[in-house]
Amino acid sequence: MRPGSIRPGGRTARTRAAVLDATLAELADRGYEHVSVETIALRAGVHKTTVYRRWRTKEQLVLEALRAAAERRIEIPDSGDIDHDLRALARAVLATLASRDGAAAVRALVAATQSSPQVARVVRQFWAARLAQVTPIVQRAIARGQLPEGTSAAETMKYLAAPLFHRLLVTAEPLTEAAADQAAAAALAAARAGVFTPT
Amino acid sequence: MRPGSIRPGGRTARTRAAVLDATLAELADRGYEHVSVETIALRAGVHKTTVYRRWRTKEQLVLEALRAAAERRIEIPDSGDIDHDLRALARAVLATLASRDGAAAVRALVAATQSSPQVARVVRQFWAARLAQVTPIVQRAIARGQLPEGTSAAETMKYLAAPLFHRLLVTAEPLTEAAADQAAAAALAAARAGVFTPT
Repeated sequence: MRPGSIRPGGRTARTRAAVLDATLAELADRGYEHVSVETIALRAGVHKTTVYRRWRTKEQLVLEALRAAAERRIEIPDSGDIDHDLRALARAVLATLASRDGAAAVRALVAATQSSPQVARVVRQFWAARLAQVTPIVQRAIARGQLPEGTSAAETMKYLAAPLFHRLLVTAEPLTEAAADQAAAAALAAARAGVFTPT
Repeated sequence: MRPGSIRPGGRTARTRAAVLDATLAELADRGYEHVSVETIALRAGVHKTTVYRRWRTKEQLVLEALRAAAERRIEIPDSGDIDHDLRALARAVLATLASRDGAAAVRALVAATQSSPQVARVVRQFWAARLAQVTPIVQRAIARGQLPEGTSAAETMKYLAAPLFHRLLVTAEPLTEAAADQAAAAALAAARAGVFTPT
């Protein structure tokens, strides 16, 4: 970098990141229906014409913010034991759902999925990308002989997460470490029994 | 009944049922935030002062409607085999979530739970009552030696339902019979492995 040189790409990237972060934060705070390009621009600290130049509608903004979130890497445990790995993953899901921002984002996504088929499609892509990241955990367990050949990593992970989302969204029960450990143990028992192996 | 006699109790009970049904329907159609005593009265075909005389706020109305729904009896399968019983229950959960009204009611409850701690408390009572109804299925399976002594019926049932709610609310995946059967098989595998037995 030469001193004093302008980095339009760098600034554009920073603006994009600020707008996408603001989109998720607004979504969490207000819910999809009450979010607008104006409030997102205000939160991101940019002029609304800057946002409109790139994204015409709030739906496009939400879609891109979700895609960007899906591409973020998450930490994949590799303890050499599927039992420990799944428990670590369940604890990570718990930490997200138990945090104020995480819970708000999940609730906003649930509402947004309902209100727009296009958002629903991107939510499915988001989960596919997220689930693909954890595939190695199950593959390594199969290679070690800890899980049946052909066990679906995506199903194992969804079953690990579902009871914790259920506590947050449906039964309004507290999100405890014991609940995370139980969710991990249940997913492991089902995987071992061949429930996630296509017949 | 003497001809021409007035049955105030009967009419009151009918009005109450109409108002509570209208409350759940409005909740499903509009969501908790957009429901009002006025729209509920209109839907129930009664004057709003009739509603206000009995319920001061929409929150009280929603609470009573949920309590009444929780008290409704559901059909409890008794095939003599825990595998069949759980599959039948999962198919029943599926039928509710796959119906337009059922899905709308669940989404409305999820939103209402978020907006009011009192609604959240009643939602917990609702689930406790619902789960208590299915206790005999697990108790009979324990008596037949199909499940470990001390298996929690409530946990078994929540784990049976959670993957189906997850498809509806979180991952936006289709609600298929194969998904219901898999949810039943996973809950059974976890129950058999002792995951739902307090240690």
